[in-house]
Amino acid sequence: MRITGIFEKAVPVASTMRNAAFDFSEMTTSVVAVVTDVMRHGRPVVGYAFNSTGRYACGAAMRARFVPRILSAAPDDLLDEVGLIDPEKVRKRMMLREKPGGDAERSVPIGTIETAVWDALAKVLDRPLWHVLAERFCGGTSRSTVPCYVGGGWYRPEGDLAALSDEVKRHLQAGYKHIKIKVGGVAVKDDLARIDTAIALMAGADHLAVDANAALSISRMHEYAEALAPYGLRWFEEPCAPLDYRAFATMAKTYRPALATGENLFCQQDVENLFSFGGFRRDRDILQVDPPQAYGVGAYVKMIERVEALGGARARIFPHGGNMMSFALVAGLGLGGCESYPGVFAAFGGFADGMDVRDGEIALPDHAGIGFEAQPALYAIMRELADG
Amino acid sequence: MRITGIFEKAVPVASTMRNAAFDFSEMTTSVVAVVTDVMRHGRPVVGYAFNSTGRYACGAAMRARFVPRILSAAPDDLLDEVGLIDPEKVRKRMMLREKPGGDAERSVPIGTIETAVWDALAKVLDRPLWHVLAERFCGGTSRSTVPCYVGGGWYRPEGDLAALSDEVKRHLQAGYKHIKIKVGGVAVKDDLARIDTAIALMAGADHLAVDANAALSISRMHEYAEALAPYGLRWFEEPCAPLDYRAFATMAKTYRPALATGENLFCQQDVENLFSFGGFRRDRDILQVDPPQAYGVGAYVKMIERVEALGGARARIFPHGGNMMSFALVAGLGLGGCESYPGVFAAFGGFADGMDVRDGEIALPDHAGIGFEAQPALYAIMRELADG
Repeated sequence: MRITGIFEKAVPVASTMRNAAFDFSEMTTSVVAVVTDVMRHGRPVVGYAFNSTGRYACGAAMRARFVPRILSAAPDDLLDEVGLIDPEKVRKRMMLREKPGGDAERSVPIGTIETAVWDALAKVLDRPLWHVLAERFCGGTSRSTVPCYVGGGWYRPEGDLAALSDEVKRHLQAGYKHIKIKVGGVAVKDDLARIDTAIALMAGADHLAVDANAALSISRMHEYAEALAPYGLRWFEEPCAPLDYRAFATMAKTYRPALATGENLFCQQDVENLFSFGGFRRDRDILQVDPPQAYGVGAYVKMIERVEALGGARARIFPHGGNMMSFALVAGLGLGGCESYPGVFAAFGGFADGMDVRDGEIALPDHAGIGFEAQPALYAIMRELADG
Repeated sequence: MRITGIFEKAVPVASTMRNAAFDFSEMTTSVVAVVTDVMRHGRPVVGYAFNSTGRYACGAAMRARFVPRILSAAPDDLLDEVGLIDPEKVRKRMMLREKPGGDAERSVPIGTIETAVWDALAKVLDRPLWHVLAERFCGGTSRSTVPCYVGGGWYRPEGDLAALSDEVKRHLQAGYKHIKIKVGGVAVKDDLARIDTAIALMAGADHLAVDANAALSISRMHEYAEALAPYGLRWFEEPCAPLDYRAFATMAKTYRPALATGENLFCQQDVENLFSFGGFRRDRDILQVDPPQAYGVGAYVKMIERVEALGGARARIFPHGGNMMSFALVAGLGLGGCESYPGVFAAFGGFADGMDVRDGEIALPDHAGIGFEAQPALYAIMRELADG
């Protein structure tokens, strides 16, 4: 098995959405195609991925450093003992001549390429990626569905309480039971009105999570914590800057319900520091590292092992992303659940066709690989890329 | 005053050098030219910078995000109260629509552009950047020279003790009194032989620093610490991974002489965490953040203020880089000293012509701006860029 070419393209993630920290009007993502020499149905097997949402496209670093390093390797040096591509060897090859630290600058392009390699590998094995991961790292899985919550409640240009109410109803009718909405973008009292509006429609306050997107000052963070604590929400996400371990630790001491963070952590050391210095509570807090943004699938597996060694639990890992990549990891590695952004982020939000939500759960699909082929709008972009 | 165009170009930093972590054979840097509408001697004033060494060129992010944001701003929104470009307003404009965290991905392109803006501003004021900084942030300066050590002792392909000895003699003859050499790339005993070789030629062990470039395992780190402690070296740099605050704190408790770190910290929160959790000793340890790699000059000024508030001292800040940008900050802000890499990193190592080292000090030059115009090989690249 050989990698014969790697192609990438920056694609706009057209969105008018806004959270408390920034808007998405300029956002892009890098779509990647890893072409192999394995033929199936008369075509080469191609692995695909994209760098999730919220971080801009990173194709220049791929073109300048990571792709040439992979393609210049002796092909056998990238294979495992049975002659298949070894994603870990590919990742190590990409790290050649990289300076220690500064992970965020390379963890996204490396993680995206590595995830695409996993997609190709699973397709060569003719099995879903979740199944390959379950077998390789978990001794198989007995799970038949995956919990999925919906991320919404953005600050829309046209947004008000009636629009939020309509949105929540739509999510509940679609089969979701757990919802996350944005906070921190308006006055506290206005956010509380939004929270009240959502909860009034839901099974309980513990079904609603809120997300401040790291936009709060320390004083606003405490103001929110005091106002939110009585609700007993499912979690309070990114109450402080992602690397402000001291602020997170203060929250963990004073805010009883669950906190969540991690979508802006990019390497294992960041997670290690969160556990060591952030006061991350092993019995309740939620970890949300984004797989393709944090060096990819293999790094995620190692991170999970380390989290467990530190007393954390898979059940409280919810990968950021709301896409088929995160889904495969949740399903295959027995994580807590995944998020979903239907109808947001253009072709990059949502799952494969037919993956409907029932009672807050999604049944495991059987597409080979990650399953992008069953996302028509996204696959159209990907296939065009692979065909050059 | 208006910015009329911003141009960038990736240039190889040709080097055969190797430290304990990686080699520089593929290294590039982004050279930036910020063109203004202020005319001097019949030509527009242009500010220049490059993204120092060790981090790859980052022009794609400049072209896609940071340059368009600056050029699309209402020009008056980027000016200070006297009508000059305000670098802080330029920096804030570049941060528009940037997600919190992941600093290393943008701190280098943003910091490089911001540094070039300072160069332009100082040229418009017709004064050296060090002088502008001293006046704006330090109430002037009484310094007439800046301490400068030389960074060398790389693992050369052809390297041995005789070559190291020749190199140290050359540096001493050139006027340096303090030298830094690499460690961690060979067996401990072989590095000790290198250290002994260097010290034998120098005024004392406290004139020699060593740099492990974050390449040591925890057990090797302790092995080095034990072997090095009796020497009383000037400092032991990057004994551990840059974000491994726990390991640094362990070293700070067990290794008595000075430690150094910071060239792989990219934002103020990283420095804050080093002080909070890394056990950084205010009375001896050395901080080495790289100005253009960490959001630029303005962010450096704020970092210094915060370091002082936390009990640290300017005298123990030695900016990474070995170039005219770091020199201007050391001279203008009263920092501990600068490093120098004469003859390494192609056109990007060393200072302006005529800035000779005498007794380990360099006299303050009087070039307007940063002074790249007096570095012929580098200025040839820069001027070609500005001329399109």
